[in-house]
Amino acid sequence: MQALKEASRASGAATPPSIFDANLDVEYVITFRYANAGSSAQTGDSRTPEEQLERLLHTLDLAGLRTVVRDGGNGSLLIFTRIRSEKKLLGEIYRSRVRDWLHGIRPAAPEKETQQSLENEPFTDGERLRLVYSLITLPNSEGGAGITPKQGEWNLVESIFALHDHDFNKKWLKDWSTKWIIGPEDLKVMRDRFGEKIAFYFAFIQWYFIALTVPAAIGIFAYLFLPAYSSFFAICNCLWSVVFVEYWKRQEVDLAVQWGSRHCSSVQRKRAEFQFDSEVSDPVTGEKIRYFPAYRRLLRQSIQVPFALFAASCLAAIIAGVFSIEIFLVEVYNGPLKMILKFLPTVLLSIFIPIVSTILTGFATKLTEFENYENQDSYEAALTQKIFILNFITGYFPLFLTAFVYVPFGEVLVPYLDVLNVTVQHFGHDEKYTTSDTGFQINPSRLKAQMIYFVVTAQVVGFVVETIVPQLKRTVFKKAKEFDSRRKGLNTETVLDPPEEKKFLDRVRHEAELDVYDVTVDLREMCMQFGYLTLFSPIWPVTAVSFLINNLVEIRGDAAKICMEMQRPVPNRADSIGPWLHNLSFLTWLGSISSAALVYMFSSAELEGGPPKDLTLYGLLFSIMMSEHVYFGARFIVSYALSKVQSVGLETERKEKFMVRKRYLEESFGTENELIREEDEKTGGEYTGVGGVSSTEDGRALDDGALSEKFWRSQSAWQDSVNAGVKIMDIVRGTDKKNQ
Amino acid sequence: MQALKEASRASGAATPPSIFDANLDVEYVITFRYANAGSSAQTGDSRTPEEQLERLLHTLDLAGLRTVVRDGGNGSLLIFTRIRSEKKLLGEIYRSRVRDWLHGIRPAAPEKETQQSLENEPFTDGERLRLVYSLITLPNSEGGAGITPKQGEWNLVESIFALHDHDFNKKWLKDWSTKWIIGPEDLKVMRDRFGEKIAFYFAFIQWYFIALTVPAAIGIFAYLFLPAYSSFFAICNCLWSVVFVEYWKRQEVDLAVQWGSRHCSSVQRKRAEFQFDSEVSDPVTGEKIRYFPAYRRLLRQSIQVPFALFAASCLAAIIAGVFSIEIFLVEVYNGPLKMILKFLPTVLLSIFIPIVSTILTGFATKLTEFENYENQDSYEAALTQKIFILNFITGYFPLFLTAFVYVPFGEVLVPYLDVLNVTVQHFGHDEKYTTSDTGFQINPSRLKAQMIYFVVTAQVVGFVVETIVPQLKRTVFKKAKEFDSRRKGLNTETVLDPPEEKKFLDRVRHEAELDVYDVTVDLREMCMQFGYLTLFSPIWPVTAVSFLINNLVEIRGDAAKICMEMQRPVPNRADSIGPWLHNLSFLTWLGSISSAALVYMFSSAELEGGPPKDLTLYGLLFSIMMSEHVYFGARFIVSYALSKVQSVGLETERKEKFMVRKRYLEESFGTENELIREEDEKTGGEYTGVGGVSSTEDGRALDDGALSEKFWRSQSAWQDSVNAGVKIMDIVRGTDKKNQ
Repeated sequence: MQALKEASRASGAATPPSIFDANLDVEYVITFRYANAGSSAQTGDSRTPEEQLERLLHTLDLAGLRTVVRDGGNGSLLIFTRIRSEKKLLGEIYRSRVRDWLHGIRPAAPEKETQQSLENEPFTDGERLRLVYSLITLPNSEGGAGITPKQGEWNLVESIFALHDHDFNKKWLKDWSTKWIIGPEDLKVMRDRFGEKIAFYFAFIQWYFIALTVPAAIGIFAYLFLPAYSSFFAICNCLWSVVFVEYWKRQEVDLAVQWGSRHCSSVQRKRAEFQFDSEVSDPVTGEKIRYFPAYRRLLRQSIQVPFALFAASCLAAIIAGVFSIEIFLVEVYNGPLKMILKFLPTVLLSIFIPIVSTILTGFATKLTEFENYENQDSYEAALTQKIFILNFITGYFPLFLTAFVYVPFGEVLVPYLDVLNVTVQHFGHDEKYTTSDTGFQINPSRLKAQMIYFVVTAQVVGFVVETIVPQLKRTVFKKAKEFDSRRKGLNTETVLDPPEEKKFLDRVRHEAELDVYDVTVDLREMCMQFGYLTLFSPIWPVTAVSFLINNLVEIRGDAAKICMEMQRPVPNRADSIGPWLHNLSFLTWLGSISSAALVYMFSSAELEGGPPKDLTLYGLLFSIMMSEHVYFGARFIVSYALSKVQSVGLETERKEKFMVRKRYLEESFGTENELIREEDEKTGGEYTGVGGVSSTEDGRALDDGALSEKFWRSQSAWQDSVNAGVKIMDIVRGTDKKNQ
Repeated sequence: MQALKEASRASGAATPPSIFDANLDVEYVITFRYANAGSSAQTGDSRTPEEQLERLLHTLDLAGLRTVVRDGGNGSLLIFTRIRSEKKLLGEIYRSRVRDWLHGIRPAAPEKETQQSLENEPFTDGERLRLVYSLITLPNSEGGAGITPKQGEWNLVESIFALHDHDFNKKWLKDWSTKWIIGPEDLKVMRDRFGEKIAFYFAFIQWYFIALTVPAAIGIFAYLFLPAYSSFFAICNCLWSVVFVEYWKRQEVDLAVQWGSRHCSSVQRKRAEFQFDSEVSDPVTGEKIRYFPAYRRLLRQSIQVPFALFAASCLAAIIAGVFSIEIFLVEVYNGPLKMILKFLPTVLLSIFIPIVSTILTGFATKLTEFENYENQDSYEAALTQKIFILNFITGYFPLFLTAFVYVPFGEVLVPYLDVLNVTVQHFGHDEKYTTSDTGFQINPSRLKAQMIYFVVTAQVVGFVVETIVPQLKRTVFKKAKEFDSRRKGLNTETVLDPPEEKKFLDRVRHEAELDVYDVTVDLREMCMQFGYLTLFSPIWPVTAVSFLINNLVEIRGDAAKICMEMQRPVPNRADSIGPWLHNLSFLTWLGSISSAALVYMFSSAELEGGPPKDLTLYGLLFSIMMSEHVYFGARFIVSYALSKVQSVGLETERKEKFMVRKRYLEESFGTENELIREEDEKTGGEYTGVGGVSSTEDGRALDDGALSEKFWRSQSAWQDSVNAGVKIMDIVRGTDKKNQ
């Protein structure tokens, strides 16, 4: 492993040897929960855990991996895996680079000599782990072991995870906690370790953090000097969001080129669950392709529309219902137990929303599986889009409800909420439990208070929950598993550890309990946050300031979360933040509508946040239309202007491609110029003989051919033509002179 | 020229030898108008025509062209040019293919042996002419002669044109006039002759023609069975336009791939007029680049906005003014000379619109030149966009005016037009020249009549004008030139023709008088026609039927026009219909707004086309908003669905690229599979010795390293791991059993 370590050390993400050894050269750990075998017997799998273990280890061996088995505690085994030898690893890296080049991800083919190629482009820790992971999980047909945790024949395989590099993590966290700005170098280090997909998230949040300073500054200015619901602020905010999204699109490209992962989505991780109609062989490439007709998937996808409507209405109904109860209790109800009943809405929401969300997410997953995607990326994108709809409703609907229903129509609608009084009166009681006699008045501070709740309180709560809940969950699950093992009559003590490995194995067992990091969750959080800014920030202009502070902590908190509370993520590649990009665009568009409506409705209100005065429906529609079209115009101009200002990434890519081809050409033919000169010399030599023309004398003795020959021979050198021309001019002028 | 002809014959566009010779092997004819020399002396050019002729012929010779000079009549010379030799032509073709490959237009490099390469991919007539044209016109730095007609040092060069291939033209026209559908094969023949740019126009009009059958069928149905201004028809029409445009985008890609011109816009024809700030050498490719900062161009482009506003208001003011006069004269005025005065508006429009349009087009050209584009394509695109604005106003504004001003507000506004009566009354006369006392009523048939005028009459008139005007113009210009020559005292008789060439030279002199074909003009016509369909067809649902008939003739008429009334066009390449694609999208979008407004306003009218009843402003805005958003949704869905259904062209391109790389790889390394097998064998050989691990014994005697070694050695084969695992399971279970 000498050379391997040196290669790894030579790479950008220099790996000091002590770290490399701290994990005992283990690349992945596979947890094998034989205690589950009982339940799998019910699913018709009659094989014993021993048989499955034997198959697993044999398959891994065939794929070129070494294994060591240790006790994992609680009825599980830890299977430590490592690539068989340095040669095998280098071969895999080389193969993957060649494959990248074949698919157009790399502009140039790797050097022909493997050794040479690795010296020129040392591999990173991330690349190594990505390849070993694909070796474990890729189907056999693509050269992997085809291990799919928890599925089919591998139902006892619980998880596959890499071991954290604690030295690196410590240094990394310390580094980030002492600097304000995460620079491109830091992102590069991240990418080398955790892969492009996670690095893109950090690049995004970093760019978002920097960009937030603009609306924060404008927000403070608006807060101090402008009237509430200022249209100037709304316009600035909307334009900023357009520039932000369009500029990020460019940055994505630049980063993808810089990280060499552009177009990487064209080599996709196949989904093991993909069901194909037939297997056809590609007429051009000759590869076997699993075929599922596109129109059938499109048909299946169309089920999304009723699903989205159903899910949205479910959640919206719950929120609207609870909202009504809340309004009633807080602002109408005046009867007994008011102090306690006031908390009822919060309790109801906290119970119902998670339950319904979970059910709907389950539906969404089923639906996405039914849509039968071929690749992991498209599967994830489709699922993400569905979950975004759920998040959209739970995140923004309460504010929409307050702004566009409660405030403008509150005085008309709220009395209808007075069910209690109506009922009570119906039964002939005299007592009044509600304040309806004094006349209901909407609470003007409600909108702003709600906004502040979502923008400040919910963010802080979210951050805390994000860091605490996983730990709690872990503890509970661990206890549950211990209990389960005990119930099944297994020994929960791990007495079989070789003493010198005790510390190491304890660490691994701890890491095995950790959650799997899903970068989409963090991206979703940022995207939702961006939504509050574009959709509602006129309500509270300093929204961006709050987010600025939040994200300063968030970016570091997420780094810490990855290091400490999650298993080391598998370094996947990506060339974009994926579907979230569309969601960001969508939010800026919706923001142009929402901001216009807010400004139109509330800037005329007598009281800030109070009921709007003197509004007309066409005024509202007109301001929304105006704003929306200005938005489209602005987006067009910004993206046009940005496309004209050269993109570093695209330019680099174009040039690299050009150079690669040129080099190839030079290798094959000598330089292009020489070729041309040679051709010219050849043709020059033939010129005096006018060989081109005289050679037409073949069988066809056509008049035209002869005429042509005569025609071209009449002036065989350019000087002849000049003389002929001058003669014509003279004659034409001369004849005339004679006529005069 | 033997081999050359054979190569040409072998190509798709087989050129029978008789045709090849009918033009005496002439490739281009340059007209040199020495009679203009006098006027050029005023511009400070002191060189005599003889000197310029000598330079011209010498430059052409240096660029590798042969020349023959003949009298062109009316004070001009005809310079016949031909590429020097077959070798030179083959070399040029090969060079151009290599350049294409370097810029990513071709997936594969041409074969290394020139001869071999031409046998595999014979060149077409279009390719040959395109290359010779670039040899004549490209700047010296790029290997051409740098002839720029009418500019700078070549001010006496009037035009450069190719000679028509009359046999081919005759066959072509006969072929097309006897078939209904122009198929892909026919387009291929076109492309081989006239280049991709013109072929794209014909492909577009053909697809448009086929697609028109759908709205024509719906239109007939609507005309017969549905009420006027049916929303069903409007929705169908709008959806059709979306599908039409999105599907064409795909077809463009497929055609470009099939014709091998995709991405050809990346190798652009440089504009000779481009003014650069500085010359920098590209750090990557090392090429010299003429640099003009993008932000300066963006600044200059921003002048477009005031220009567009100014131009649009100019034209709109004229149209609105004349419209008012017309309304007044036709529907209000009742005084003397009514019969004659009625024609005044038409006369006024026919005078003013062309004059103002010409002035504005001049401005637009100046502005586009000021924007200083580097490439011919971007220059043309920018000019096209500006002229589209002018066309948009002159073409559609009259209908907008009638539909959205005259009909709804006519009864309020028209009485104000009654200036005459007001004036007359002011002077105390008693006579009433207008019918204002009887109360003005809008003319409900006006909108439909106007629509029919634009959709039928104007199309027919346009077609006739298109075919007759060039002939007229030609005759007039010829007379003018003859007169000019006579005035300058030149002999107008061409007495110097060798008798056997007389017929040929007469034909060439005729072709020299013809107009230059500009495909943008024809594309504009189709685009404007499409606009009537999307914007206004609810007014008269059978619009599409009229266009269907018109285009059946138009496509053949345009072919005839190219063959008979225009010089043979230079076969330029293209990978799209360029800026018109955006204009089509723009028109579909505007159509969604316009249709919604028309349907909302007029479907409620008592009388068809009469003044709308019971309308509300918010109703109008709401229906427009609805329609627009449905349009956006539909466009998104259609383009998404089309992107998922595999595109033949893109698929082919991707696969070709893949195969090229694979072949390259196989050439360089042997097949990929062999490589992998080889690697595997190597690693397999090392496996039994577990060499990978034992080699860690280097200087660093780390504890961790030793631990790692021991760790992996503990189970050196996979069977050991199985045994260890089974043992652990047994112990865990067994220990427990003992406990029980």
